[in-house]
This record gives sequence, structure tokens and C-alpha cells, in this order.
Amino acid sequence: MTNGRVKVGIIGSQFQAGIHAASLQIMPHEAEVVAIASPTPGNAAALAKRFRIPRVFTDYREMLRERDIEMVTIAAPNSLHADMTRDIAAAGKHIVCEKPLAMTIAEGEAMIAAAKRHSVLLMYGEELFFTPKYLKAKEMADAGAFGKVYLIKQSEKHFGPHSAWFWDVNRSGGGALMDLGCHGIAFCYWFLGRSPIKSVYCQMGTYVHGEKTKAEDDSLCILEFANGAVGLVENSWARRGGMDDRIEVFGEAGCSYANLHMGNALPTYSENGYGYAVEKAPTTKGWTYPVFEELWNYGTPQELTHFAHCVRGKETPQATGEDGLVVLRAIYAGYASAGEGRKIALPYQPPPEVKKPIDLWLNGAARQQTARH
Amino acid sequence: MTNGRVKVGIIGSQFQAGIHAASLQIMPHEAEVVAIASPTPGNAAALAKRFRIPRVFTDYREMLRERDIEMVTIAAPNSLHADMTRDIAAAGKHIVCEKPLAMTIAEGEAMIAAAKRHSVLLMYGEELFFTPKYLKAKEMADAGAFGKVYLIKQSEKHFGPHSAWFWDVNRSGGGALMDLGCHGIAFCYWFLGRSPIKSVYCQMGTYVHGEKTKAEDDSLCILEFANGAVGLVENSWARRGGMDDRIEVFGEAGCSYANLHMGNALPTYSENGYGYAVEKAPTTKGWTYPVFEELWNYGTPQELTHFAHCVRGKETPQATGEDGLVVLRAIYAGYASAGEGRKIALPYQPPPEVKKPIDLWLNGAARQQTARH
Amino acid sequence: MTNGRVKVGIIGSQFQAGIHAASLQIMPHEAEVVAIASPTPGNAAALAKRFRIPRVFTDYREMLRERDIEMVTIAAPNSLHADMTRDIAAAGKHIVCEKPLAMTIAEGEAMIAAAKRHSVLLMYGEELFFTPKYLKAKEMADAGAFGKVYLIKQSEKHFGPHSAWFWDVNRSGGGALMDLGCHGIAFCYWFLGRSPIKSVYCQMGTYVHGEKTKAEDDSLCILEFANGAVGLVENSWARRGGMDDRIEVFGEAGCSYANLHMGNALPTYSENGYGYAVEKAPTTKGWTYPVFEELWNYGTPQELTHFAHCVRGKETPQATGEDGLVVLRAIYAGYASAGEGRKIALPYQPPPEVKKPIDLWLNGAARQQTARH
Amino acid sequence: MTNGRVKVGIIGSQFQAGIHAASLQIMPHEAEVVAIASPTPGNAAALAKRFRIPRVFTDYREMLRERDIEMVTIAAPNSLHADMTRDIAAAGKHIVCEKPLAMTIAEGEAMIAAAKRHSVLLMYGEELFFTPKYLKAKEMADAGAFGKVYLIKQSEKHFGPHSAWFWDVNRSGGGALMDLGCHGIAFCYWFLGRSPIKSVYCQMGTYVHGEKTKAEDDSLCILEFANGAVGLVENSWARRGGMDDRIEVFGEAGCSYANLHMGNALPTYSENGYGYAVEKAPTTKGWTYPVFEELWNYGTPQELTHFAHCVRGKETPQATGEDGLVVLRAIYAGYASAGEGRKIALPYQPPPEVKKPIDLWLNGAARQQTARH
Repeated sequence: MTNGRVKVGIIGSQFQAGIHAASLQIMPHEAEVVAIASPTPGNAAALAKRFRIPRVFTDYREMLRERDIEMVTIAAPNSLHADMTRDIAAAGKHIVCEKPLAMTIAEGEAMIAAAKRHSVLLMYGEELFFTPKYLKAKEMADAGAFGKVYLIKQSEKHFGPHSAWFWDVNRSGGGALMDLGCHGIAFCYWFLGRSPIKSVYCQMGTYVHGEKTKAEDDSLCILEFANGAVGLVENSWARRGGMDDRIEVFGEAGCSYANLHMGNALPTYSENGYGYAVEKAPTTKGWTYPVFEELWNYGTPQELTHFAHCVRGKETPQATGEDGLVVLRAIYAGYASAGEGRKIALPYQPPPEVKKPIDLWLNGAARQQTARH
Repeated sequence: MTNGRVKVGIIGSQFQAGIHAASLQIMPHEAEVVAIASPTPGNAAALAKRFRIPRVFTDYREMLRERDIEMVTIAAPNSLHADMTRDIAAAGKHIVCEKPLAMTIAEGEAMIAAAKRHSVLLMYGEELFFTPKYLKAKEMADAGAFGKVYLIKQSEKHFGPHSAWFWDVNRSGGGALMDLGCHGIAFCYWFLGRSPIKSVYCQMGTYVHGEKTKAEDDSLCILEFANGAVGLVENSWARRGGMDDRIEVFGEAGCSYANLHMGNALPTYSENGYGYAVEKAPTTKGWTYPVFEELWNYGTPQELTHFAHCVRGKETPQATGEDGLVVLRAIYAGYASAGEGRKIALPYQPPPEVKKPIDLWLNGAARQQTARH
Repeated sequence: MTNGRVKVGIIGSQFQAGIHAASLQIMPHEAEVVAIASPTPGNAAALAKRFRIPRVFTDYREMLRERDIEMVTIAAPNSLHADMTRDIAAAGKHIVCEKPLAMTIAEGEAMIAAAKRHSVLLMYGEELFFTPKYLKAKEMADAGAFGKVYLIKQSEKHFGPHSAWFWDVNRSGGGALMDLGCHGIAFCYWFLGRSPIKSVYCQMGTYVHGEKTKAEDDSLCILEFANGAVGLVENSWARRGGMDDRIEVFGEAGCSYANLHMGNALPTYSENGYGYAVEKAPTTKGWTYPVFEELWNYGTPQELTHFAHCVRGKETPQATGEDGLVVLRAIYAGYASAGEGRKIALPYQPPPEVKKPIDLWLNGAARQQTARH
Repeated sequence: MTNGRVKVGIIGSQFQAGIHAASLQIMPHEAEVVAIASPTPGNAAALAKRFRIPRVFTDYREMLRERDIEMVTIAAPNSLHADMTRDIAAAGKHIVCEKPLAMTIAEGEAMIAAAKRHSVLLMYGEELFFTPKYLKAKEMADAGAFGKVYLIKQSEKHFGPHSAWFWDVNRSGGGALMDLGCHGIAFCYWFLGRSPIKSVYCQMGTYVHGEKTKAEDDSLCILEFANGAVGLVENSWARRGGMDDRIEVFGEAGCSYANLHMGNALPTYSENGYGYAVEKAPTTKGWTYPVFEELWNYGTPQELTHFAHCVRGKETPQATGEDGLVVLRAIYAGYASAGEGRKIALPYQPPPEVKKPIDLWLNGAARQQTARH
């Protein structure tokens, strides 16, 4: 089992599961998807057909019995990550867990422990560590282009998630900060060489989708790092016009701006429309910003290929459960800060009764006060 | 004295004084600069010569005795605004005070009272209310393009101020937030129809110019408004590469991006260099982003022409001492929030012993704690 | 009659007439529109009402009897320029003739002669000589930024003209080259310090609007100048998505890119739409590129103010009938080159029977050959 | 020999040879470089070392004796393409010939014949057929986004080639049109579905590098296609500021702009500089436009991988000797048109005594005339 392409099983059948399958089709030399499991039978079959995945399961536990599968990717609601990870680890298979890592810090810690116990890899699906354009920014930073970096920004914005479970805070654990901010927090942390996060302050609100969700649909997040730098992470489920992902780097000797969507696109006008513009674009008519080789430009094929290399022992995971846990801790601190209206220092321990990150905001004193106004 | 061009005296002889003189040359029909006063004799004479200003004074109080002068603009260090305003008002002349309004809230209140007492106008030099590109954004917002606006951003960044007194917090009262954030706070407030500011949170630090100043050279400022919208104001004295000013507008129905510098410029490569690229550009060689009709694009000629119209009673001031006071109160709350590491609700009353805004940060508990690390 | 604001009469009541009126409202200090003449009574009255123009005429000859009018602008179909100019000159009034100057070279020569005979100014409505962004490019070029300029490009493109007469070649004399190429030819000539045009080569076709017109709706035009530089002028009535105007400058020491529309705009997404985006924009919904202070950015207010200064003797015309004649000669050579499939050297004398520029293409050997295919 | 990775030999040791080697390292699964041949021993060894190529030859004919080599890429001066192709074909190996195909049409025809005779593939190194961003434009066009395309533009510009032999017209056959225009001509032809080229018109000159070369360092090329569309191809060896490659598509229903360099880059300011910005960038200090994954964005790894697939019979060559010959014929017509000052219809047969394309311009009547002025 240590040669040839890594055999992969996917848990999930919606948006992110499709990205996993498509990514491994784009870079097919190191891994192949041999099975997919989803409790929604139609969805799994549809995805299996689209990507010619031979085996389909409605119970992922059954899929875990397939002996040839070496790596399983989790593209399921956040609330299920911990149980699935425990089961995959117990089956002796390597794990790729989509972001965010888990619902609670305890879950995250248990996931890491389970992987360790069973000697499998727990890899964390943070594609921004593999995004080519952002890697160039980091390469320049590491080459000294900006001197000491004092401010690093990342933002990801669109008009709301692709699967219904995101709107239900019991399944997602939170809104834009949880869903998208996990990218930005991870990005800043990684860009700064994994300097520890010292504090978090978040501003958030439900501006547009209040009828659909209790979750925040827009958030601003300020991170202080031990090395003295600051991160600014902006996220939205309320920004119209299609996906938007960008970074900015500021250092004493320079600055850089990288825009993954409008800054890579072919500005296009079409009366007729055409096949596809970009993730979550509302239309292909009128002026649009179509991107090219979208997944490659996000980095997901590179990420999953890297994980396959790790399974073969050729590389060491660049995005791990530990990274995911750092991010999750910051997310908890972020919701707490929004709930209390003050910067929260890390390490931060949420009260034991807190079931999910967003509760710290929803039940926070600052929020209660605002709501009364 | 109610006909013809409004006769203007300028107090100051450095960067901003030059902008006043140049702006009234660009739009010369409503006002003319007839006098300039500055304690630095050479500077005043040089500016007077450059702009053909007939009368030069070393003591602005003497200039105030000139009977034909109807409007006096203050382009002097922040610490002098209050005394000068009092004197100009007492001389029965209308006042244009550059931003920020004053060092303390008490000063600002006294300035407004003095103007009222002497029945003169106290106008506030916030050119962003007159910036053509930003006016277009507001025009679209007011036409409903974005539905309800939930987030408005403004940032102004460069590598540090043009006059030495800015670095001395006793003369400036603060750093990037005080100097540049006053623009962004005013802009968000104005863009949202002067909805009251409910709270302020600021992140700041001295990252690059620590040998030169105790002031913050980079700040992030989050404002909550009574109408439910949020403002994000970013400022820097540490951003390389020339002046940068931009806004972003996000509403439930759309968004807009306006970049005043790189987004208006002629991307240009030159081996030889050329006359002038843009405010605070480090060079005109290599790739640069030259702008055109810079002051007109900032809006200062339009602003001063508007003020002259106000003096003639044809228009009502669109930027007033009251606006400046709202901003100054938010700046105080901002420094306090940075000092305490928490969001500060408005109205906020700084402790009586506080002499200038930045003291709230420099002496704040959060800052003391950080410094100890 | 040599003091105060210059009194202006406008001939025309459609798109360009509105621009004249609006431009003089934007910069109202040097000139005022006191009369408008148009054979279409409703149109003239509507424009008069919109811009509060007191006097309305259906026969421009009557308007010319108004003694106080000092300057008359021609915003009428190309075929009428010559007669109108003759009449205005005979009435002793200064002339602003919109581009292109005339239908034939003989007409253009007669216009210049008439103005000279009656000692009035014949000024030529080429606003690109006054476009602020393009002036910056020229300023850099003149400052040596690019060393010797070897290639200068200008393009103006949209989806077809605003008034019906343009489609009728008997009234317009030609299509995109005649209507829009006159701008680009004038621009290159002016940018290069009025170096004589040595040759012209044009490629043209009717690609999209063939049911509506015999005129070319897209053209490429290559100009050789006596100083060794080359001009590339691109024009279209077939380009979707709103107005597009841009230049590029290439010299031995550098290059510059100036985009007047997308390069100045506020990229905006709106579900609702809003008032106005840009000249000839098809919609304000979805992604659009709204511009700000459009006429000022084109330069028409500055142009007409300059012309008023010329009437008062304060300035010398920067865009003259002679410029228009140079351009018209190049346009004739351009159509001839398209008709013959070869570069045409200047000076070029069209055969005496040719009534309008486009005939040289429509009846040209190369075109006949193509049509047969 | 029909399994495993295709073994590749490279002829050449300069810029393009390095791109071949690097491209196959980026996508290493289908092919591997096992040998390199170059008469300049040091260069070949250096490249071999850099890319860990095991075998080095000074005579490519010796390399052709290696039995395991299946595909040989030609990255040598244009004047050698024909002989090399003949030899490679005779050795029974597949050929990848860099652009332009050859010096003369006869050579090109002989190359195609030789490949056919020996039953090997003659593949043509036109990476624009594989450039991801441009593929997106074609995908949209093919999906009907633009309706019927009437104008397609491509330009490639920089400040001059990387190897000295380009300046010598006896080795290169021509300047910017030959070196870079071959890309644009191929691109337009391919984008329009290989509609035959009906005519060519070129404008060219030696503006900046006259002391170094007789070749044109800037050219404009207008192509008429049988389907009625027009191509505009712009090329330069005289454009400062680093590599520039862009396309524009215009159709009756829309348009699109794709900029491969500045339109993909991270606008960056650096006081210190950094490793690498972009092909032929003059510096990494000040403002620059660094690109990311440059070769992948050009498409050379995809191109060479495709060629390896063709060798294995899995795909059919998308860029062939026939394509190269179409382009070469157009280049001959282009130089002839510049020499004669008129559009040249295809098929065009150059006079038998013409040894290389550029002679048609250098000895052309139009050129002689110009030179006399």
C-alpha cells in the first residue's frame, strides 16, 4: 500500500466534496478518488457519476471498511468533523479535514489525539497555504521585499454559502467568521511564520440574511501576533457580485496587493452570457470578471496532491490539525470579543457550557445591549 | 464687502498652506488669496512669491487687522487651532480650520462658541466631502444602488507627514489616527448621512518610525453607527510607495470600490523620470502611478470655492466645526479604546487631566501591558 | 462687447449640443449660453428648458442676427458645417465647429478662408487636447519621461452614435473613422508636437450594423509622422459595454497607459441600478464602471472656457480650423487607403468627383474585390 | 518504448532551452529531460546541472544516436531549425520545434515532408494555444459570449531578446515580427478556428536598437481572415518595463480583455527588492508587477505535456508544423507588405532569391523611399 496513487475516499456530496473530486482530476498523478460517502443518496451518486467515482456509500463508516482506501477527506458539516475524524483514524486511514477543524476546542484536541493514537496524519484543508498568487507574496516577504511586515490583511467575501446547513448555527457553529474567517486567520498566522496569536478583536453583525440565519453575515477581525504584527481579516456572506478573495501586505520596506478574483480576471462584456464566470457569480451577462483555472488558482489541487505526498512519506504536512486548532481557538476568542466588546487575550478558555463558538457572541453582554437599543 | 471675490488670508506656510493657495488658483473666480501669515519668515515669503500673494505677515494677528480680508484659513499645527480660531472670530472674519479641529474637545467646543458669538462661519477643511470620485459613490448610494449600506471603508496611507511638527505629539495630539483618521471618520459619518457614532474601537502601533515619534504610525479603526452600519478606517504613516486613498462601500444590494490614486493613475514606466507623479511619491523613475489634476481630484479647490460661496451667503457650509467636533470626539474614543483594549461607547468624556488624544493610548492599561511584554 | 462673460449661441439640439450647454454650466465664469437654434423645434425647446437657455430659434440664421452673441458653436450634422461656418463668419461671430471639420477638403479650406476674411476665430472642437488625463501623459512626454516617442496609440469605441444622422453617409461622410478617428488622428498629431502626417493606412469594415448603415463600424488606422513616430488609431461603433477611450505612449525610455473610462471608474455591482454610469452604458445593473465628473474628465468645459478666453483675446486657440483640416486630409487618405489596400502618402488630393470621404472606400478597388468574394 | 515517461532531448542551452527543461520539471509525470546538446559546452553543462539532466552533448547529432530518446525539442537559432528537424526525423524521433518554424517557406515545407517521411510528429512550440487565461477567452468565444468575433488582438512586447543571435538577421530572419509576431499571428488564426489568412499588412521600424540590429524593433500587423474577422498583432523589442502580453476580443455581442502580466500580477512596492518579478523585468525595486507561476501561466508545461501525450498516442497535436507554416507564410507576406507599403494577399510567393523574410522589407521599395527622405 505504499506505492502507486493514493486511494482516496470523500465524505460529502455537496460543494466542497465536488472541489475535492475535481482537484484530484486536475492533478491526477498522485491520488485518485475511489469512493464517496454521503447520507443523501442522490447527491453522492450524482457526484460519483460526474467524476466517475466507482464506489458510492450512504454510510461513511461502511466506506471506511474498504481496505484500499488510504486517505479520507471530510467535506461534511462542521458539527460532524470530530466524530468522523475519530472513526477514520480508528480505521487507520489518513484524514483531510475541511476547515474549520471542529465545533469546539475539546473536539479539536480529541481529533488530534485520535490521529496520533492511530498513527495517521490529520491534515487540514487550508488551501490558502497553497494558493499560487499568495505564495508569491510570501516568497517576496521571505526574501525581504517588505522588511519587517507589520500588517497583513486577508479578506474573503461572497453572498452566502452554497449549502443550506451553513445557515444553521447548530451545524455550522458560526457565520462568516467561522466559515471564511478561518481562512484569513490561518493565512495571517502562516504568512507571519506561525507567530503565536496574542489577542483577537471582532466586529460582527447580521445585516442582510437575518431572515435566514442567526449567524453573522459580515465580520471584521483584528489579530495581534507575538512578533508584533497585526492581522486584519474581513469576511462576508453579504457581499454581492460573486466571490472575492484578496490580501494586502505592509512592511517597513514595502507593500503588496494580491487580488485573486478581479485581479486575475478577464474583464468581459457579454450580451449572451457564457458557461461560467467564477464561484458564486450571479450571472455571465453584462460586465463580469471570469477567472481561469479557478481551482488551480485557489490551490486545492496542489493542496490535495501535497497531502497525497505526505501519505507516501515524501513530504511533511504543511497544514495540520494543529493549525486548525490554533485557528479554532482564535475563532472562539473572536466570538467572545464580539460578545464582550473588548479584545480577548489568548490563550482563551471558553466557559465549559459553551457548545459552539457563535454562542459567545449571541449571548454576549455587548450584543445583548445592542439588541436592546 | 458682499460682492466680488472673497478675500482670503492664509495662516501657515507649509504643505497645507500651499494646497490652499494652489486650490484657489485652480478655481479663482470666487476667492483670492491676498495675504499669508507665518512665523517662519522665509517660508511665508517663498509661498507668497510662488503664488503671487501680495501681503506677508509674520504674526497672524497683524494680518487679522487687514480690513478687506473676509475669510482666514488655518493651516497651522493642531495645537494652535483653538487660539487662532478665537482670534479670527474676534476679528469678525470667517474661518476655515484644517483638520483635525483641535487638540481637545473643550477647545473644539470653544471654537464653535466663539464663531457663534461673533457671527462668523467656522468651516472645517474636510475635502473628502468634495472629492469628485467619492461624491459619485455617495450619489449612487443615495440613488439606492447598494440598498442599505452596512459597511463603509476608507483608508489613507503614506510614509509619513510632510512637516516636522506632526511627529511631536505635543503639537499634533496624535499620529496616523489623528492626522489621517480624522478624514476617514468624517467620511464614514458623512457618507451615512451623519448617523451618530455609537462606538469606536482602534488598533494602533508604532511600527516603523519609533525613533522619530511616540505617535502611532498605523491604525485600524472600527466605528459603529446609530443606523446599524459599520465603518472601517485604516490609516498609515508607514506605507511605502506614495499616497494611497481609497474607499469601499458594501450594501445589501451591491458594492463599489473607488481608488483615488492607483485607480485613477496612468501606469507609467520611465527610465528618465519626469516632473511629478503624486503626493509623497518616492521617485518618478521605474514604474509609477502618476495622477492628473491632483488637487481637483482631492476636491480642495471645490471645497474652498464652496466656502467662499458660503461667505457670500449663496450656500450653506457642508463641512462645519460641528462635523470636526464629532470627529474629534470619535478620535478621543479611539485612543481610549486602544488604551483600554475595548470598544468605547459614545458619548465619551475623557478624564479632565487628559491634554491630548494620544495620551489615552500612551498611558492606557492595554498599552502598558503590551509594553511590558 | 469685450468684457464680461462671452455670450454663446448653440446650433443643434441633440447629444453634442447638450454637451456644449452642460460644459458651460460646469465652468460658467467665462461664457454663458444665451441662445439655441435647431430646426427641430421640440428638441431645441427641451434643451433650452433643461439648461435655462433664454432664446430659442428654429433657423440659426435668425439667431445670428442677435447682436450680443459673440461665439456660436456648431453641433449639427457634418454636411452642414461649411455653410453654417460661412454664415456665422459673415455675421461677425466667432465659431466653434465640432469635429470633423467638414465633408470635403474644399469645404474645410473655404471655412478657414471665411473666418480669416471676416476676422473671426474658427476654433475646432477637439476636446482631447484638453482631456486632463491625456494632458498628464503629454506633460510627462514633454518632460522627457519616455525619451523619443516612437509609437502613440489612441482608441475610442462604443456601440454606435447617439443621433440617427450618423448612420447616413450622405450626412456624416463616413463611419467610425470619420466620427471617432478624427479624435485619434488629431490626438496623435498634437501629442507629437504637430509633426506632419506623412502617410495613412486604414483597415475597416461593417461588421455589426450592416442593416443600418453603409458606413464602416470598426476601423484601424496607422499614421506615419514626419518625425519618425507612428500613430495607431482604433475606432469602433461595434464595441459593446459603454464608452471606451484610452491611449498608450511608447518611447525609447518608457511607456504609459491612460484609460479614460474603466481606468478611472469605480468598479460597482448593483442589483438595483442607479442614475447614470457612463456615456452609452447599456445598463446600471450588475457590474458597471461608473465614471465621475464625466465632462470635466473629457475636457469639454475646459475646451469651451479656453475658447471663450480666446474670444476675449486672453489666449490663443489651441485647436483650430487648420488642425481640423489636417485631420480631414488624413481621413480622406485613410478612406483612400482602405479602398486601395495600400498606404497613401500625404499630401493626398482626392479625385475631384469625390463628394465625401467614405466614397473612396466604398468605391475602392480593394473593397470591390472583397465584396465579390 | 511506448510506456512510461517520454524521454526528451533538448537542443539549445539558452533562454528557451531553460524554459523547456523547467516546464518539464513543473509537470514531470509525462516526460523527462534525459539529454541536452549545445555547441557551447559551458552553457549546456550549466543548464544540465541546474536541471539535473544526466547527459550532455556538444553535437546534437550525437545526442540523436541515444536510443531511448523519443522526443527532441529545438531551442536553437531560427536558421538551424530546418537542418535539425531533418536530422531528428531521420533519427526516428519526434520533434518539437520552437517558433518561428523556419527561415524560408521551402525549409518549412521540407520539415513537414521530412517528418511525414519518417513517420514522426512535427510539433510546433506555440504556447499561446495552451495559455490558461487565453484559453478562457476562447472558451467564452466558443460558448457564444461575443457572438461573431470581428476583431481579435494580441500583443507581445519587451525591450529586446535574451540571446545575441536574435539581433543578427542572418540567424533570426527578422525582428519583432518574426520573433514575437509569430505568436500573435498563430494566436489569431487559432482563436478564429484556423480560418485562412487572406491578407497581411505590416508597419515596422527600427526605433531604439538601430546600433545593434538591422531588424525592426517594433511592428504592427493587420491580418484579414477568410471568415471576415480581422487580427491586430502588435510586437516590440523596444517597450520598457518588462514583458507584456495581452489580448482583446471584440464580437457583435461583447468583448473581453486579458492581460497576462500586469493583469495577473501583485502590484508591489519594495525598497529592498526581492528574488524575481517577471521575464525581462529591469528591477525588483520600486513599484513592480511580479507574476506567479510564470511558466504555468504561459502554458509551456501544459504544452510540452500535451506533446508527450501525443508521442504516446493519447492526444493529437494541437500545434503542428502546418500551423507554423501558415504563420511563416503570413510573416513573409507581412515583410513584403512593409516593403511595398500595401496589403499583400495570400497565398503569397516570395521571389525565389529571397533568403529570409526581413529582406522583403529591407529591400522593399517603400523602405528605400523612406530611407531617402
